[in-house]
Amino acid sequence: MAKENFVEQIADIEKDFPQWYTDVVKKTKLVDYGPVKGTMVIRPYGYAIWENIQKELDKRFKETGHENAYFPLLIPMSFFTKEAEHVEGFAPEVAVVTHAGGEELSEPLAIRPTSETVFGNMYSKWLQSYRDLPIMINQWANVMRWEKTTRPFLRTSEFLWQEGHTCHATEEEAMEETIKMLGVYKEFAENCLAIPVLTGKKTEKEKFAGAVATFGMEAMMKDGKSLQAGTSHYLGQNFAKAFDIKFLDKDGVQKHAYTTSWGVSTRLIGALIMAHGDQRGLVIPPVVAPTQVVIVPIAAKKGGVMEACYDLKEKLTKAGVRVVLDSTDNSPGWKFNEWEMKGVPLRIEVGPRDLEAGKVVIFRRDTCQKDFYDLTSVIDTVTSLLTAVQKDMLEAARVRRDERIVYANDIQGILAGVEGGNFVKAGWCGCRECEEKIKEETAATARVYAEGETAETCAVCGKKAKHMIIYARAY
Amino acid sequence: MAKENFVEQIADIEKDFPQWYTDVVKKTKLVDYGPVKGTMVIRPYGYAIWENIQKELDKRFKETGHENAYFPLLIPMSFFTKEAEHVEGFAPEVAVVTHAGGEELSEPLAIRPTSETVFGNMYSKWLQSYRDLPIMINQWANVMRWEKTTRPFLRTSEFLWQEGHTCHATEEEAMEETIKMLGVYKEFAENCLAIPVLTGKKTEKEKFAGAVATFGMEAMMKDGKSLQAGTSHYLGQNFAKAFDIKFLDKDGVQKHAYTTSWGVSTRLIGALIMAHGDQRGLVIPPVVAPTQVVIVPIAAKKGGVMEACYDLKEKLTKAGVRVVLDSTDNSPGWKFNEWEMKGVPLRIEVGPRDLEAGKVVIFRRDTCQKDFYDLTSVIDTVTSLLTAVQKDMLEAARVRRDERIVYANDIQGILAGVEGGNFVKAGWCGCRECEEKIKEETAATARVYAEGETAETCAVCGKKAKHMIIYARAY
Repeated sequence: MAKENFVEQIADIEKDFPQWYTDVVKKTKLVDYGPVKGTMVIRPYGYAIWENIQKELDKRFKETGHENAYFPLLIPMSFFTKEAEHVEGFAPEVAVVTHAGGEELSEPLAIRPTSETVFGNMYSKWLQSYRDLPIMINQWANVMRWEKTTRPFLRTSEFLWQEGHTCHATEEEAMEETIKMLGVYKEFAENCLAIPVLTGKKTEKEKFAGAVATFGMEAMMKDGKSLQAGTSHYLGQNFAKAFDIKFLDKDGVQKHAYTTSWGVSTRLIGALIMAHGDQRGLVIPPVVAPTQVVIVPIAAKKGGVMEACYDLKEKLTKAGVRVVLDSTDNSPGWKFNEWEMKGVPLRIEVGPRDLEAGKVVIFRRDTCQKDFYDLTSVIDTVTSLLTAVQKDMLEAARVRRDERIVYANDIQGILAGVEGGNFVKAGWCGCRECEEKIKEETAATARVYAEGETAETCAVCGKKAKHMIIYARAY
Repeated sequence: MAKENFVEQIADIEKDFPQWYTDVVKKTKLVDYGPVKGTMVIRPYGYAIWENIQKELDKRFKETGHENAYFPLLIPMSFFTKEAEHVEGFAPEVAVVTHAGGEELSEPLAIRPTSETVFGNMYSKWLQSYRDLPIMINQWANVMRWEKTTRPFLRTSEFLWQEGHTCHATEEEAMEETIKMLGVYKEFAENCLAIPVLTGKKTEKEKFAGAVATFGMEAMMKDGKSLQAGTSHYLGQNFAKAFDIKFLDKDGVQKHAYTTSWGVSTRLIGALIMAHGDQRGLVIPPVVAPTQVVIVPIAAKKGGVMEACYDLKEKLTKAGVRVVLDSTDNSPGWKFNEWEMKGVPLRIEVGPRDLEAGKVVIFRRDTCQKDFYDLTSVIDTVTSLLTAVQKDMLEAARVRRDERIVYANDIQGILAGVEGGNFVKAGWCGCRECEEKIKEETAATARVYAEGETAETCAVCGKKAKHMIIYARAY
């Protein structure tokens, strides 16, 4: 049976989650390995998801007053040394251009691992007066961070992302922007990717190199590990001072601006796969699915079947649905497996007997259930099912996650929790030593502060806890 | 007067076209120089034009059956040596990464100057059978070519572009694709950028390094020079053989595929500026204009003016028009100059006296003429004026260009022609020596073959002409 063959090709999701992931991304043609170690080729099916992600996010960025621009790929190495923490964090991962145009360069150039420095350099030129503020620019770009171990979408030397960089007159405004963009990410993750996320501040140890404070959103994958799906940084005046970003304020005084930066990347595709996928393959939420509906003719040669399929395809396209009619000569069973593996949210099966009865079968990929529906109202049915799938996928992911958030009072509890595939909430005294001890002994890290929750004692030292932390093993 | 100040700031377009260009791109905040020599920052106003260009082109690529993907930035240097002409053409311009992650790389990596090699490498893995053909992939990406002399948009070390790479079973199909995409570019240039273009085959000397044949589209700038605005390459089996792109054909025989590639870049923004701009600044055709209409209140404090402006803005936005209401406290005259310089196609002036009479003034940037229009039907008026501006700009550019295409019989004639700011058509025997002599003596190059035209004798050697060539000085 074709079906069983497919299942065989994908490693067991329960027994070997990493291999399951690798199998799924390769077999669904989302991605392939590039010729240079650690690089990936995002294939059309994967890139179409990215395009949908971009479209949704870009709309939200523009609605919140941001404009897009494009800054250079190459950054003078000397720029990195201007902000002490920043260089420490990024220099070890940088790819360096030393020769160009047949000559050795007088100064080596970094391929951007992130662009705070080059934005800072330009902002210092553009910013003159308080009237020029705020400056709110985003760019969609490739970045490069040389990594030892890589995995498609999750960690590759080159990846695609967006990076917002804003400049404000006051601390309050910059902090408001930081939190607002974190909120934009959360709303997007939940409503478009159907991934519930925990958002909150990161510890000093886990924050962005050069930030005053980093806020992150963490998503639970099906193996119980966490994936940092986006970050928003309040940079205070760190970069403004390093790059001399100043303005003449209303009161006639020259002041340094307050800046922020925030980004999400093609990692989100990895998040999507690991938050929703199952043994049959991908399960893609309708909002970002390259194909939302596949029509599969059953006994295509029988009178009326193909006509009904073409008609359906045309009407769904007109209704704004992304639809594919699979008219290849593969068997229906083969097609079922193929499109299930590709994670298409809905499948419509059009067969001669059902047609006679004025019916079609619709299969939902998220629940793997099928039902009969009237052909006369099928367009409405499809659009409401797509809405239902989107909503139900989020709800199901939320239930899965919430069942796996536990509490612990000591390191043994944290270890047991994360080994059982959970996020673990535990008290923390606030010192770096205790944080590091947890990482050493449990391989879990502090993901974010659990907002609005307090704890009695630190799970490591037993002293009075200052914060409740969400610990997890992470990608 | 503010108006005169503006005009003073921009160099005389008739006397110093290069300086006029530099002034316009800087003052309208389209672009700025990046910190690394030869790089540019595409600022929000410039990037918004690029986004509109992308949207229009991307739609056309998808309608003609192409999918987007993303291939790696870094290419092993050894890939370039696989196609002899290709390496000769591109190696001198390549930027090279030699170190990454704190170590020296075992093989230096090139930042892509173009991606035939890495597409070729992946296509050879993906292509198995004739059933997999055609493969038609496009990517939107940054590329890098280290140039000695640079100019924003026209020639910079890094630029943004799209590159389509396709793979076909037969020579005919690949050639058909090459010509089809040239046609897509031409239609886009004319209908979206309002730039009439001459398309045709390039000479051997001017073709893409590694192509069997290159077809280009050439646009006339206001100084009479030509700008190569896009190219489409028929690559034959050159890259298929170099990268082993093979398939099992229907007849059971392994065959090399036939490939094509085609691209346009942020150069198009330069083309737009130099094809339409005037002494007041930019003139942007409505289809790609970031702002299509600006509303300027006159005597804004008078009753009803701002209300009418807000109402107008809302209605135009609903009608799908990209509109800005300039409610800053600058004077109307200052605003007129500012938005004229920015090339916004239409300006609506809303004043209290006109309002009383049920009228508004609309100014057309392309003709610099204004007229009164009824407020009741102003939305329809605006949408038809936008259509008219788009059409008239193309027509005006066509008239300007056609007046400046002349014929010549000898080198002196070609020299006089190009010095007078013309494209010159002249006969060519087909030999490289004659082509090079023209370049040496006139600084003009063979842009494209004049399709469908024949000449008696070669303008250089006087021997029988094989082709009619369009010569021009070029950017």
